[in-house]
Amino acid sequence: MATITETEKDFMDFLKEQNALREAISLIQWDLRTKIPKKGVEQRSEVVGYLAQKLHQMQVSDKMKNFIDELKEQTSDQLIQKSVQECLEIYEKNQKIPENEFKEYVMLQSKSEAVWQDAREKANFSDFQPYLEKLVDFNKKFANYWGYEENIYDALLHNFEPGVTVKTLDEVFPKVRKSLTELLQKIQDSSVKPDTSILTTHFPKKDQKNFSIEILNRMGYDFDAGRLDDTIHPFEITLNLNDVRITTRYDEQDFRMAVFGIIHEAGHALYEQNIDKKLEGTPLASGTSMGIHESQSLFWENFLGRNKVFWESHYDLFKKYAPIEFDKVSVVDFYQAVNEVKPSFIRIEADELTYPLHIMVRYELEKALINGDIEVKELPHLWNEKMVEYLGIKPPTDREGVLQDIHWAGGDFGYFPSYALGYMYAAQFKHKMSETLDVDGIIQSGDFSKIRNWLTENIHQYGKLKKPLDILKDVTGEGLNPDYLVEYLTTKYRNIYQF
Amino acid sequence: MATITETEKDFMDFLKEQNALREAISLIQWDLRTKIPKKGVEQRSEVVGYLAQKLHQMQVSDKMKNFIDELKEQTSDQLIQKSVQECLEIYEKNQKIPENEFKEYVMLQSKSEAVWQDAREKANFSDFQPYLEKLVDFNKKFANYWGYEENIYDALLHNFEPGVTVKTLDEVFPKVRKSLTELLQKIQDSSVKPDTSILTTHFPKKDQKNFSIEILNRMGYDFDAGRLDDTIHPFEITLNLNDVRITTRYDEQDFRMAVFGIIHEAGHALYEQNIDKKLEGTPLASGTSMGIHESQSLFWENFLGRNKVFWESHYDLFKKYAPIEFDKVSVVDFYQAVNEVKPSFIRIEADELTYPLHIMVRYELEKALINGDIEVKELPHLWNEKMVEYLGIKPPTDREGVLQDIHWAGGDFGYFPSYALGYMYAAQFKHKMSETLDVDGIIQSGDFSKIRNWLTENIHQYGKLKKPLDILKDVTGEGLNPDYLVEYLTTKYRNIYQF
Repeated sequence: MATITETEKDFMDFLKEQNALREAISLIQWDLRTKIPKKGVEQRSEVVGYLAQKLHQMQVSDKMKNFIDELKEQTSDQLIQKSVQECLEIYEKNQKIPENEFKEYVMLQSKSEAVWQDAREKANFSDFQPYLEKLVDFNKKFANYWGYEENIYDALLHNFEPGVTVKTLDEVFPKVRKSLTELLQKIQDSSVKPDTSILTTHFPKKDQKNFSIEILNRMGYDFDAGRLDDTIHPFEITLNLNDVRITTRYDEQDFRMAVFGIIHEAGHALYEQNIDKKLEGTPLASGTSMGIHESQSLFWENFLGRNKVFWESHYDLFKKYAPIEFDKVSVVDFYQAVNEVKPSFIRIEADELTYPLHIMVRYELEKALINGDIEVKELPHLWNEKMVEYLGIKPPTDREGVLQDIHWAGGDFGYFPSYALGYMYAAQFKHKMSETLDVDGIIQSGDFSKIRNWLTENIHQYGKLKKPLDILKDVTGEGLNPDYLVEYLTTKYRNIYQF
Repeated sequence: MATITETEKDFMDFLKEQNALREAISLIQWDLRTKIPKKGVEQRSEVVGYLAQKLHQMQVSDKMKNFIDELKEQTSDQLIQKSVQECLEIYEKNQKIPENEFKEYVMLQSKSEAVWQDAREKANFSDFQPYLEKLVDFNKKFANYWGYEENIYDALLHNFEPGVTVKTLDEVFPKVRKSLTELLQKIQDSSVKPDTSILTTHFPKKDQKNFSIEILNRMGYDFDAGRLDDTIHPFEITLNLNDVRITTRYDEQDFRMAVFGIIHEAGHALYEQNIDKKLEGTPLASGTSMGIHESQSLFWENFLGRNKVFWESHYDLFKKYAPIEFDKVSVVDFYQAVNEVKPSFIRIEADELTYPLHIMVRYELEKALINGDIEVKELPHLWNEKMVEYLGIKPPTDREGVLQDIHWAGGDFGYFPSYALGYMYAAQFKHKMSETLDVDGIIQSGDFSKIRNWLTENIHQYGKLKKPLDILKDVTGEGLNPDYLVEYLTTKYRNIYQF
């Protein structure tokens, strides 16, 4: 590394200041969702608004522009070079939006979330419709400011999964859908019907938590660099690379919520805890995209947590914490129960196999919205139609339909595909990993460190130093390929449902 | 209220920005002392340093100076006027210190605290001595920058208890000391020896906590505007007026630590929760001084928590949570046990009667240090001498002596007197309150709201709108008067020790 110049040093200091604001904002968000007493929220919201505004001002400041211009071509330090690129992307993305529109949009977002929450409770789409219309209009406008090559929706996809386009998705998703619906048909035709009654046995929170902590320790989640807290909508949040917190919700009538939820969030957390510490203080110190992040959480949740060998080797441990009723259930029956496939209305409660179909419903609709092919007011009807087409069931009300997710209310169009992409990435990584590691053997041993180390070496450590598709290419030697996911699901469910 | 001018509005917005930083810093401090995983601390310290620096820069900025100059004489709004005065005090206090000295001092403080912690553990004063010497030198220099009328130590006292001077303390403290040492002598000569063996009965944390929460509810601590968490060194912290958190430490072998500690911190919290909400966002939205704050915590801890009527009326409730062993102890014996007077080395473990003597040891020494009458290296020896003179006991090592408190390591000279002042204020308030309220009757009823309302009406609501001695005068009609405290202690302990 060449000696750092005065400008480079000033730039890094400027990044550290932004990082301090980012860390303070993250702590406030964590506190807002886990600890804050209810009367404190109103004033705290002002505080976070102020800090976010300060951060935004720094990101689009002339000072930032000058650093970018000065360092873009000149720096020989790779870390600084990548940081400059990242800052340039943020700068351009934000600069292209006129300030008054940005402000109006931020206010619309927070108002819309409140309206959506209320509308969902009442299952009344029409209350939410005018807000959603404005949000769609803003996003179309922004997409045009940002620019795109083929499809306007690509500009929004870029925010969550740079490199992935409508063209790719329109090739990949229908293939996957075809395979999954065929599989689903076979499953529904099968005479195997898992007995799931055990799943709703009363299971005290403390025992769910203690079992989950055993698994977290085996996964290598570092409690000296994180915590586990209760919340309503579970999330992982990174305060800094040595303080990566996870949260969960306990349902004492269904342990799956917390047990699989914790493994999922810990998958996100392992990614962040294992980013190279030399990235700390730069905008590169986080996961590279929503899709790659989801590949990590789904890898652990599904490929480990819903794995047959995992339960064969961990069911005794589980029973140490579980209610006595589980003693009467064999590991085979238990494994089949937690892997039951059954079309359902709510995405976040979907099984492994139908989950991608939920994503495709959303993708098709939001792509059509942004392209102006459909109107917001048609959404409830079209949603239900798609659900029948893809999953064979029709939501009884919009609460279990188009109003279930927060994403659109927050203006997040282009986000949903990441969930399905992450799942496919995870299957690709798993396949690659299996070439050099005896994955099942490692899972059986109860010490998962070799798996974690593989993920760290190939994915985690880079943070945002590599773009998502570059990571995929570097690790697997190919681009997005849905075959591994389809193969995994086919093998797994053929086994369970014996077709 | 006159219509607010453009400048006044801008000023209030500027204050809100500072307040946002203050709130973020407070949340970080709370998290650092209650929740943060250990590896996260290092990076978080940088964040809090950055935010504190930003706040400091705003407080001493030209922008602030311009607001002060423009509004000092002109504003007709009382809230703005008082805010301007407060900002002016902060501005002048900070402006008078050259920037390089300020920076050096801040670094010295944090280094000294670490050195002190280590020195205390090893009971090795000489490691800490050079740092303490520098801290004393800085404080003497700062005191000269700030100015004073009679005694250089007054300039430091002013930071914690504006209006109180060496002249006052040198009149009041010796009187109190004389009375307390006489009382102590009578107690030691008494044949009454409370049996304290019950106090160290194993008492599960959860039960201590549940009893304490019952008391918090009776005190009117608002859990919708606060929380109770675990920590090592208990404290109260205000994030905003609707988020006032308290913390405690549980010793399962001595319930007094948590039970009295929680009442104490809740006394601080009630003060802050009941400040007039219209002060939110200004620098006036906090307790007016260390002394008045301590008057509130000590009022509840001692005048309620160690009160005979309180235990007579609450011992049954206590026994619902306490271990079965307490069933064999009468309320009289219990009351005497928790009020045992016995000279001890550690200030924070001292009983009600000897506590002020601990403060006087510290006051005499720090006053002499700042006046150059003694040298730092003489401290261990002089400390032990004073302890023998005031309390009749000599600490076995400096760990139980001069090294026990963090205050000097943090550069806080002039702070200690607040503890004794607060105690005297509390006795004065209690006396005044008793003229219109049947305090014991209210305590007996289990609903303490009339007491809390009296404190809110007379003290809490004003925040920093009134200076400490103005509050004292407005409430009691007189200045600092130690007679009420002496009278309270005399009556109470004459009763217990029957002299």
